[in-house]
Amino acid sequence: MAATNLVRMALVVQKYGGTSVGDADRIRAVAEHVARTRAGGDDVVVVVSAMGKFTDDLIRLADDVSPHRPPREMDMLLTAGERISMALVSMALGAVGVESASFTGSQAGIITDTDHTKAKILEIRPDRIREALDAGLVPVVAGFQGVSTERDITTLGRGGSDVTAVALAAALKADVCEIYTDVTGVYSADPRVAPKARRLAKVSFDEMMEMAATGGRVLMLRSVEFARRHHVPLHVRSSFTWEPGTWIVEEDPTMEEAIVSAVTDDTSEAKVTVGGVPDRPGVAAQLFRHLSDAKVNVDMIVQNTSLHGTTDISFTVAKTDLDAAMAACEVVRAAIGAATLTCDDGIGRVSLVGAGMKSSPGVTAMMFETLSAHGINIEMISTSSIRISCVVRADRVVEAVRALHTAFGLDAA
Amino acid sequence: MAATNLVRMALVVQKYGGTSVGDADRIRAVAEHVARTRAGGDDVVVVVSAMGKFTDDLIRLADDVSPHRPPREMDMLLTAGERISMALVSMALGAVGVESASFTGSQAGIITDTDHTKAKILEIRPDRIREALDAGLVPVVAGFQGVSTERDITTLGRGGSDVTAVALAAALKADVCEIYTDVTGVYSADPRVAPKARRLAKVSFDEMMEMAATGGRVLMLRSVEFARRHHVPLHVRSSFTWEPGTWIVEEDPTMEEAIVSAVTDDTSEAKVTVGGVPDRPGVAAQLFRHLSDAKVNVDMIVQNTSLHGTTDISFTVAKTDLDAAMAACEVVRAAIGAATLTCDDGIGRVSLVGAGMKSSPGVTAMMFETLSAHGINIEMISTSSIRISCVVRADRVVEAVRALHTAFGLDAA
Repeated sequence: MAATNLVRMALVVQKYGGTSVGDADRIRAVAEHVARTRAGGDDVVVVVSAMGKFTDDLIRLADDVSPHRPPREMDMLLTAGERISMALVSMALGAVGVESASFTGSQAGIITDTDHTKAKILEIRPDRIREALDAGLVPVVAGFQGVSTERDITTLGRGGSDVTAVALAAALKADVCEIYTDVTGVYSADPRVAPKARRLAKVSFDEMMEMAATGGRVLMLRSVEFARRHHVPLHVRSSFTWEPGTWIVEEDPTMEEAIVSAVTDDTSEAKVTVGGVPDRPGVAAQLFRHLSDAKVNVDMIVQNTSLHGTTDISFTVAKTDLDAAMAACEVVRAAIGAATLTCDDGIGRVSLVGAGMKSSPGVTAMMFETLSAHGINIEMISTSSIRISCVVRADRVVEAVRALHTAFGLDAA
Repeated sequence: MAATNLVRMALVVQKYGGTSVGDADRIRAVAEHVARTRAGGDDVVVVVSAMGKFTDDLIRLADDVSPHRPPREMDMLLTAGERISMALVSMALGAVGVESASFTGSQAGIITDTDHTKAKILEIRPDRIREALDAGLVPVVAGFQGVSTERDITTLGRGGSDVTAVALAAALKADVCEIYTDVTGVYSADPRVAPKARRLAKVSFDEMMEMAATGGRVLMLRSVEFARRHHVPLHVRSSFTWEPGTWIVEEDPTMEEAIVSAVTDDTSEAKVTVGGVPDRPGVAAQLFRHLSDAKVNVDMIVQNTSLHGTTDISFTVAKTDLDAAMAACEVVRAAIGAATLTCDDGIGRVSLVGAGMKSSPGVTAMMFETLSAHGINIEMISTSSIRISCVVRADRVVEAVRALHTAFGLDAA
């Protein structure tokens, strides 16, 4: 990017999350940073979330008003938050001498399907954004929202503002999409869990996706996927210190890869086990079809080798989905004649993520040895080419993360 | 209206102001009232304002963020309030079994000019509202807002939600536009000033316009004018007691008219006097052209008969416009060689309004006699065919209103 800047202006999409526009002071700080970016010669498109906890306040208000909350009306309600932020940011830009104009999701051409509260972007028609850029303005766009093919206001679900920013960056062929937040980047582990965690200067899309999927809280899986598919470099950084953060980019084949980049942890899941399952074709399919129909997202799945004609199937789900999962499983258990159905919400997952793992067979053994040396029992194991996850007792997760962080040489000097 | 209801459903536009949707309890009460109206066989379109003081909070936030507040961005900011109300009202309707859908000004087809913060409605294309009604839904429309011919979000200025309601009622050929507020109707005087004031069951559009123009605080002049021009009967009533309020309708030639319907008062204005003005053609035109260019709205104008070749011109303006008015007048005073320029912000205006006044010449005399009997000096007089206004000292206004209210037989029994 730096080299490119010498010969032409870059186009930067800057997304500011709720804490970054949390009050009048923060909004003025955002405006000053946009002004600095412009002074450096770059064009800027700003994407904003709702201020701080404003969206939560609106949800609470809806709770007070009615138990009946149609998704279309929830979307109408919640999109008010970004509308407020974007107008205020635009005003603050004016105060520091940067001409700007704000645009709703609809005005920015974010066209979605009609699946209210979790709409998918179908198409971006950023004509008005391009016109604003051509006119020398900084467009300020409401994140999280779009307009459906039925001309109704939609929202993009959790992490939706990041998706808006990445999608706009892709449509505008921006050079980078900067995600401003209240942390200074992506770390080798959650610093609250592992105090020796280091900020990573760069991670690959694949690593970031594995991290997001196994408990990394900085970016949602969805926006990383979108960025990877559309080749949009991401830069996660702080709107409080403004220092350079973590770049999330395509894997660079010329560079030596770290074997392990990060240790992640997740204690938001529970484990379900269907025991004594008859070992015949189609049984697992029946089980997971039922779970899918019940809108339960299943994460890790482990099936033991069949002994004596029956097998055990275990899987993890979000704790919030546990009741639905158990209900769906009970139906299938009875139908297929499985012996037992049990669940366990005292589990946690510890994962190692690293693009270099592919070519380093010793990682798995070293992970197991490290946990064993701490007397931590492994209850489930699942792997991808660049990740190993172990389910352990929830109350051993912090110790496991710290031990692995040290063992794999990730601790800050 | 009642007779009509026996043979067909009426279409009722119900507008709820800020206090009427001020919190979750009020919103649920609104939903119940809409349900009652529907149960009575009528179709309903709801128009809502922002909740309570929410718009004021947003303005304060804008003040904190930036001294630079472009009108386009202010409109984007302020329209968030109605968006929140309409979604919440729609949810509350669902909770009482009434199917509904909310619509922004833009979705409701409120097309305005591009004069941000005080846009005028150019056209209403209520296709989606009609479709919703045909589908058996209650449309809930955001008041105060529209979309400009440039596809930007606009607001309609003070009293804008009433204008939205009246304009929609006109476009949909509604049978009545009900304006719900925190008072029970239009009174023969401001009850805080004259405790014996009575609620009026019915007033004519002309009377209501004179009342709005001379200090009546229930409806803005603009929405009454709009309703009169489009023959939309208004019904001003309380969203706290739900009792029948005041109908504002076309004058009914078959009915005997009250000579005086109401006494209004207004202490929001100041008086400006340009003294020793050369009495030649074009001088007054020059003065009021300058005031108009300075965006000063002039209210009462009095010019004394010319004596000795010079005259005095006095007029009233809103106190908030006084500085601008004095500056504009000083320019003209110097140019035309007038002797003096003075102002007085200690005045108040007391007005009698009544459609029957046209044919009752004794009203003026009785008004002057009443004020005189109380030792209240009259400083300026202006009249229309159905109104007489007197400017008096501000600190005598309350006494004047009460005396006139009693003298003209308006006191409640």
